[in-house]
Amino acid sequence: MTRTSPDIRVAVSTVIFTLRPAAGGAALSLPLVRRTRDPFEGRWALPGGWLDPDEGLDAAAARTLAETTGLAPNYLEQLYAFGDVDRSPSRVVSIIYWALLRHDLVDQQRAAHAAAGTAPENVQWFDADSLPELAFDHNAIVDYALWRLRNKVGYSRIAHGLLPDEFTLADLREVYESILSRKLDPANFRRQVEATGTLIPTDRFRTGSHRPARLYRYDGAVELAARGPISTPDSTNRNEER
Amino acid sequence: MTRTSPDIRVAVSTVIFTLRPAAGGAALSLPLVRRTRDPFEGRWALPGGWLDPDEGLDAAAARTLAETTGLAPNYLEQLYAFGDVDRSPSRVVSIIYWALLRHDLVDQQRAAHAAAGTAPENVQWFDADSLPELAFDHNAIVDYALWRLRNKVGYSRIAHGLLPDEFTLADLREVYESILSRKLDPANFRRQVEATGTLIPTDRFRTGSHRPARLYRYDGAVELAARGPISTPDSTNRNEER
Repeated sequence: MTRTSPDIRVAVSTVIFTLRPAAGGAALSLPLVRRTRDPFEGRWALPGGWLDPDEGLDAAAARTLAETTGLAPNYLEQLYAFGDVDRSPSRVVSIIYWALLRHDLVDQQRAAHAAAGTAPENVQWFDADSLPELAFDHNAIVDYALWRLRNKVGYSRIAHGLLPDEFTLADLREVYESILSRKLDPANFRRQVEATGTLIPTDRFRTGSHRPARLYRYDGAVELAARGPISTPDSTNRNEER
Repeated sequence: MTRTSPDIRVAVSTVIFTLRPAAGGAALSLPLVRRTRDPFEGRWALPGGWLDPDEGLDAAAARTLAETTGLAPNYLEQLYAFGDVDRSPSRVVSIIYWALLRHDLVDQQRAAHAAAGTAPENVQWFDADSLPELAFDHNAIVDYALWRLRNKVGYSRIAHGLLPDEFTLADLREVYESILSRKLDPANFRRQVEATGTLIPTDRFRTGSHRPARLYRYDGAVELAARGPISTPDSTNRNEER
């Protein structure tokens, strides 16, 4: 049967979070791209694009993210396939990924693009808790990604995806507080985190206006997040490569 | 651009588990459909079909499952989108669902189809731990579904999807033992399960060759499995409707 266009198209988009330093605690933040054509011209949308017939899903997520925002995440995982019939004027099934990028790497990558003259256009960072009305069902998609992140932080070392290689317990607690949107008791937090056995104290301290705070790192042998039998060789998980 | 066929097609398949009563403990079991055409003619495959342009993903999973096996699950959830470039001779992205069906309902549905003369063809049940080589990447898909089930049983009441409304603690323990493929200490299990606060003791007992065992039911207010902000009105979750 001859068709002038496919009945169902497949898109791939990514919700990529970083923790933006802010007064009074860090803020979960994500880049969005302003659409330059209908449908939803002028609205902000998740970075993404059409799946290429010769490309896997993970690769498509990484490629479309890089092409639209210039970013390469340190953690990337498939989230969910959104396929309601009327989420888009034509029928589109979107395979959604979520990702994490350490803020120091965000700065590094932005600086590299600025120096090379390859800074992406139409991209702006938004705090996750103050998004405008996005294109398509992208508000609902971000909600789901936030929910997944909040759940995952409770039983995995996913917080590592938002931290530098070495960090203080206060840094780690701030990540949890930002994700969970609530303050945590420092003593309880320290106890619980030390009980997980995933933190390795280093000999280094951060000095500054407060008393020196010990720097920790994650035990590299512990997986960032249990992935099960899915092996995704083209996922960018730099933290896991150590 | 005129195309004679879409570059990328979208399929939906379901891994549906039941717990088959067996000597020495129950066995996780799933129905497969024998393919009657290439690719992989003659091989067993997961029940599924092509996504219809006018149909949502959850509805497609339920429909293709019903059309090929005659079954209606009591729990249905999206698992993962499998989209490696060479998983199929032509490019197919498969949105995979996993499901649970209580064994008493399996028997009920099979009997209803037999009476109506609508028993499905080419369908056979297999134990999850002794599958033949399946079509496409369906062995890897079943592995991932098993992994998800095993993980989920540890932190949710997903076991309820495999049990009748009222059950003994031994019944519940047997579900966990079958899913986890190991024996559990009955006293420890009782303690842990009672600590979850999700079980309600009834006034009824099961009598038989052993001393009477109290029947329990799940607290209906507790969700079968945390779904987050994704509301899927066409998912069949009879247990959640109570």
